[in-house]
Amino acid sequence: MNKKIAVILGDGIGPEVTQQSIKVLDAVAKQYGHEFHYTECLMGADAIDKTGNPLPDETIEVCLNSDAILFGAIGHPKYDNDPNAKVRPEQGLLKLRKSLQLFANIRPVITYPSLQHLSPLKAKQLEEVDFIIFRELTGGIYFGKKETNEEKTYAFDECSYSREEIERVAHLAFQYAQKRRKKLTLVDKANVLETSRLWRKVIQELAPQYSDVAVDFLFVDNAAMQIIVNPKQFDVVLTENMFGDIISDEASVISGSLGLLPSASVGNGSALFEPIHGSYPQAAGKDIANPLGSILSAAMLLDHFGLNKEAQVVREGVEWTINNKFVTKDIDPVNFYFTSTIGDLIADFV
Amino acid sequence: MNKKIAVILGDGIGPEVTQQSIKVLDAVAKQYGHEFHYTECLMGADAIDKTGNPLPDETIEVCLNSDAILFGAIGHPKYDNDPNAKVRPEQGLLKLRKSLQLFANIRPVITYPSLQHLSPLKAKQLEEVDFIIFRELTGGIYFGKKETNEEKTYAFDECSYSREEIERVAHLAFQYAQKRRKKLTLVDKANVLETSRLWRKVIQELAPQYSDVAVDFLFVDNAAMQIIVNPKQFDVVLTENMFGDIISDEASVISGSLGLLPSASVGNGSALFEPIHGSYPQAAGKDIANPLGSILSAAMLLDHFGLNKEAQVVREGVEWTINNKFVTKDIDPVNFYFTSTIGDLIADFV
Ligand SMILES: CC(C)[C@H](C(=O)O)[C@@H](O)C(=O)O
Ligand SMILES: CC(C)[C@H](C(=O)O)[C@@H](O)C(=O)O
Repeated sequence: MNKKIAVILGDGIGPEVTQQSIKVLDAVAKQYGHEFHYTECLMGADAIDKTGNPLPDETIEVCLNSDAILFGAIGHPKYDNDPNAKVRPEQGLLKLRKSLQLFANIRPVITYPSLQHLSPLKAKQLEEVDFIIFRELTGGIYFGKKETNEEKTYAFDECSYSREEIERVAHLAFQYAQKRRKKLTLVDKANVLETSRLWRKVIQELAPQYSDVAVDFLFVDNAAMQIIVNPKQFDVVLTENMFGDIISDEASVISGSLGLLPSASVGNGSALFEPIHGSYPQAAGKDIANPLGSILSAAMLLDHFGLNKEAQVVREGVEWTINNKFVTKDIDPVNFYFTSTIGDLIADFV
Repeated sequence: MNKKIAVILGDGIGPEVTQQSIKVLDAVAKQYGHEFHYTECLMGADAIDKTGNPLPDETIEVCLNSDAILFGAIGHPKYDNDPNAKVRPEQGLLKLRKSLQLFANIRPVITYPSLQHLSPLKAKQLEEVDFIIFRELTGGIYFGKKETNEEKTYAFDECSYSREEIERVAHLAFQYAQKRRKKLTLVDKANVLETSRLWRKVIQELAPQYSDVAVDFLFVDNAAMQIIVNPKQFDVVLTENMFGDIISDEASVISGSLGLLPSASVGNGSALFEPIHGSYPQAAGKDIANPLGSILSAAMLLDHFGLNKEAQVVREGVEWTINNKFVTKDIDPVNFYFTSTIGDLIADFV
C-alpha cells in the first residue's frame, strides 16, 4: 500500500510525540511492505510565528492531497489571556476542520487495568468501561456568527444546526453502535435549546433505520454526572460540538492517563489523527511527554487505511510497553523512560 | 423576625422533601421566636396540569411579595422526548429566574467524611475539597433568541452577554472569594467564543478592585477534567449559564450524595432556595427521597435572612443525622429511614 500522510507537528510537545508515531509507522511500512510518504506542514502558534497565519493555504492544500493527517498538538499560553489577540493558534485547527469537513470527532474511552491506580475514580467505577464519543465537529456555536460591539460592552455567539449536519454524524454513530453493543445515547439540552430539540427529532427519525440499536437521551448536565458515576452504561455517545468538547475531555479522566488517549476526526474524504492531550508547553523539548496518545492515534490512522492487522500490532506494542513498565514520567514519576525511548521500543516491537 | 416565604412544592419528589424543610423552619421559628408565613404557589408540570401554564402570573406575584422562595423540584419525563411540545415545565423555572432577576446560582461543593464510601472518587481526591460555584443564571444561550424553521430542517440558539450581566454576578463571586480562600477561577471558552472573551476581559478589569483575590482562567473542557482530577485547587468558580449548568452538576458527584446538596439563586431582591436534585419521578410519593438537600437549602435561606445562628443549628442537625446513620435509602439501601422521619428528627434536634 502506498499512502500520502500530511504531518502537522504543531505546538509544545506536538513535534516530539508525533516523531515517535512516524518511527512506528516507518516500522510498520518496512515490516508489512507499505510506503508512507510524509509531507510536513504548519499550523497553530508555530505557523503564526513562522508565517503570521495559523493555517497557511499551503497546509490546506497538502492536507487535501493526502490520504490522512497526523497531527501533534495546538496552543500557546501567550494567546490565552489576551482577549484582544487578533490571531489565535486555535483558529488554525478550527479552519482546518471546516476546510476538510471533518465533521465527526471520535474518541474511544478505554481503561487499562494496569493503570487503574492512576485513575481518580474507584476501581468499582472502572469496571467494564468501554465507550466511544462521537462529537459533531464542524457546526454549532464554534462556527456560528460571533460579534462584539466597538466598546466591548456586548458580545454574542450563534449556535446553529441543520438537519444534514446532524444526520451525517448520526449515521456514522449509529453504524458504530451496530458493530458494538448496539446502544446510542444522545446528549443534548432539549429542555432548553432549540438546536437540541432538532437533534432529538432527527435522531428519533433516524432510529427506525437502525432498529437493532437502542436509543436513549440524556440532558448534558445529567450526562456530566453519569460519565463519572456510572460510565459503564455507555456504548456510543453522540453529541453536538460544544457539549462534545466538554464531555469528551471529562470522560478522558476516567482512565487516569490523559497522555495515552487517541482521537480521530473524520469527514467524507480526509481524516485527521491526534492525541487528545494539549500542547503542554511546560514539558516541550524535554523528551518526557507521553507519546502513546499519538502512537495510538497512528493506530487509528492505520485502521482508516484498512490496515487493521497492522493497527492491532501497534496496539499490542503499546500494551506491551505498559505491562512491562516502560512508561513516561506522567505514568511513573520515579522509574520513567524518555519519549524517544518509548518510540524506539514500540517501533522495535513492530 | 417576621418573614414571608413563597413555597413552590413543584414536581416529583419536590413536595415531600419541601415539607420536611417547612417542619424544620417551623421548629426554628418556635425555638428562636420568629414568624414565617408560607404561601404555596404553582410551577412546572404540576402547574401545567392544574392551569395549563408552567408559571401562572399569580406565582410571580406571590414570589415578588415574599422575602424568599423555597422550591422543591421541576420536570416530568412525559415532556422530555417530545420535541414538539409547546409547553414545558422547565419554562416555568426559567421564566421565574428571569422575572425575579435571579442572576446568580450559588452551589457549595462540600464532602462529608462519613459518606466518602459513596463517592465515585478515591479518598485521596476528596481531601480538602471545599469550593463554591457561581453560575450566571439569567443570560447566555438560555435566554437568547431561539428559532427553528417551519419544516424543522434548521434551528438556532443565540448566546449573548452584556458587560452589566457579567459584572453583577462577578462582583458577588469576588466578594465571596474575599471571605474565603481568596481565589477566583473563571471558566470559559475564550479560545473559541466571543462571549467568553468578553467574560475574560470584564473579569480582568474588575480584578484590581479585589486585589487580595488571585484570579485564574480555565477553559471549560479543561475545567471538566480538573473538577475530577484535582478538585481541591478550587475556591470560588465563576462561569456563564450553560457551562455552569454542566460543571455544577458534574461537581455534585464529588460528594457521592446528590440528595444532600443545596443551592441558592439570588438577585437584587428575591432569592430562591432549592436542592440540586431533580424531580426524580420514580421515587415520588414513596417517602424515600432524601430531604437533606432541601433542608440544607432552607439553611441557606436562613443565612439569607441573616439568621446565621439558626442556619448553623440546622446544619448541625443534618450532620447529626448523618453521623448517627439516620439516612434515607439513597445513602443506605439496607438500614434506611423515611423522608418524613428524617424531617422529624432534624426538627426535634432544632
Ligand atoms: C483547541 C480547541 C479549539 C479545541 C476545541 O475546543 O475543539 C480542543 O479543545 C479540542 O477539543 O480539540
Ligand atoms: C431544569 C433546567 C432548565 C435547569 C437548567 O438547566 O438550568 C436545571 O438543570 C438546573 O440546573 O437548575
